[in-house]
Amino acid sequence: MNDTSAPNPAEGSWQNVTVIGAGVIGASWTALFLAKGLTVTISDPAPDVEKQVRAQLNEAVPALRALGLPTDGLGGNLRFEADLERAVANADVVQENGPERLDVKQDLFSRIERAAPADALLLSSTSGIRATDIAEALEQPGRLVIGHPFNPPHLVPLVEVVGGEQTSPEAVQRAVDFYTALGKKPRVLRKEVPGFVANRLQSALFREAINLVVQGVVTEEELDEIVTSSIGLRWAVAGPFRSFHLGGGPGGLPAFLQHLGPALQAQWRDLGSPQLDEPTVKLLSDQARFGASFEELQTARDKAQIKVMRTLGE
Amino acid sequence: MNDTSAPNPAEGSWQNVTVIGAGVIGASWTALFLAKGLTVTISDPAPDVEKQVRAQLNEAVPALRALGLPTDGLGGNLRFEADLERAVANADVVQENGPERLDVKQDLFSRIERAAPADALLLSSTSGIRATDIAEALEQPGRLVIGHPFNPPHLVPLVEVVGGEQTSPEAVQRAVDFYTALGKKPRVLRKEVPGFVANRLQSALFREAINLVVQGVVTEEELDEIVTSSIGLRWAVAGPFRSFHLGGGPGGLPAFLQHLGPALQAQWRDLGSPQLDEPTVKLLSDQARFGASFEELQTARDKAQIKVMRTLGE
Repeated sequence: MNDTSAPNPAEGSWQNVTVIGAGVIGASWTALFLAKGLTVTISDPAPDVEKQVRAQLNEAVPALRALGLPTDGLGGNLRFEADLERAVANADVVQENGPERLDVKQDLFSRIERAAPADALLLSSTSGIRATDIAEALEQPGRLVIGHPFNPPHLVPLVEVVGGEQTSPEAVQRAVDFYTALGKKPRVLRKEVPGFVANRLQSALFREAINLVVQGVVTEEELDEIVTSSIGLRWAVAGPFRSFHLGGGPGGLPAFLQHLGPALQAQWRDLGSPQLDEPTVKLLSDQARFGASFEELQTARDKAQIKVMRTLGE
Repeated sequence: MNDTSAPNPAEGSWQNVTVIGAGVIGASWTALFLAKGLTVTISDPAPDVEKQVRAQLNEAVPALRALGLPTDGLGGNLRFEADLERAVANADVVQENGPERLDVKQDLFSRIERAAPADALLLSSTSGIRATDIAEALEQPGRLVIGHPFNPPHLVPLVEVVGGEQTSPEAVQRAVDFYTALGKKPRVLRKEVPGFVANRLQSALFREAINLVVQGVVTEEELDEIVTSSIGLRWAVAGPFRSFHLGGGPGGLPAFLQHLGPALQAQWRDLGSPQLDEPTVKLLSDQARFGASFEELQTARDKAQIKVMRTLGE
């Protein structure tokens, strides 16, 4: 089903955004939407949602400011509406961040598609559920698009945009336009795949990271230092394919694969397959100190990351 | 065998460095050593070695300058001596970058240990051969240390320092002191493991990257963009363990592993195991365009990377 009848709003028609579910991800989206001048309605049944969201908004202020965004009166265009149907009634965009359960998301979106305006853009932040599966419960499956942020959304540029089998190309394009207007870097995936791309890559590296710590080759802190002083630094400016393209000399990636492919494949066979059993979790948890409080580490990371983003944006 | 009788030279006694094998890695080391004011003797049997090294030195000048290093008269303290024994006769440090074959490295180091001064630091850049195995051919196995750079050594901070079973702790410490004096970030591994740490992590991520391209989820260029706008950016400032520590909320990594460990383990089972057979190599090679010449891509990457390094060094 192609939802080609949906109007294609002109740029700037994203004024009213409804955020469904205001946990860590939903509140971070909210901070970004508000800093970009949008009006946000939050729908979340938790009794203390307003208090929690306003606290998280305050925490996001330094990062937003460092990104060059206005933060005065940030909460002024924010309202709370626990009733889902009323919350989406005037939405231009709905960004859903509910529990990661298929039945919950199917229920939410089947109610949203009936209560929201016919041309509202329907987005889910899910990190693990396919649009195709959610859309099975919908009358207008062409409208639903996954917009999966990398945490925290107000800071990290990437948004993975994925349509389901019935999602219309127009809806995908509108999602890209929306996130681009917010200053994000939306990347459209060509196929639905569990975990999408960034998390799968992260997960693959982390499996070997755990293996090396479990084997006693390095501590967690030593491994982190190795990453930040080599592959992290490199991948901030050139992704893995481009890096190996340049690692192949003038022959590029083809030469690299010809010369080093067999060694690479042999190395894959040697990588570890750790199990996250109780002793392993204990070992990994015992090492997790990092020499500073959670807040200090978070502030330092955000500050450094914003500096890098500004440097590379120049 | 503990080589505790080796003298522990005072800082600054690294004046004479001999570089064995002046391919891409050896020439890059040479550029750094010279820019740091050391005197370098290159020993390489290739007939055109001097021409090639001087050309690579010229190519390294912009990066060295951007790093704030002096480059005037860079080649002034450089000499070439094809005869291995003569080349190491006055060496304070030997950095070996010969072919990645155990028999070749055993032959080189057994000649080097006899011809070099008794207190010369003996380092190998090998990315895949254990110090323990090379040292089997040596009379003084306590002296040999792996100092494995991340390419190119004149630019990327990391040097993985690894001793073999018989390497003396003093030799490992001297290697750390030497690389630290050069402004590098030496990281000592606690165990020998094939490929060391950075390459294994890189390899694990690259395997899944290839899987996603082969499955048609993204192109190489799209995957690179996803990495630079998410995990690359993140890992430039906080390694994988610290990142997941912060991803776990105030409960840190222990909470992360408790809540998301099962999902992580399930994702590991879903990761791909691509084979680098002929059709796959062809597919990956056909996509390797990247929209610019090799030199343009390399210059852009080096420039961006130096900017990030300077930003984070502040």
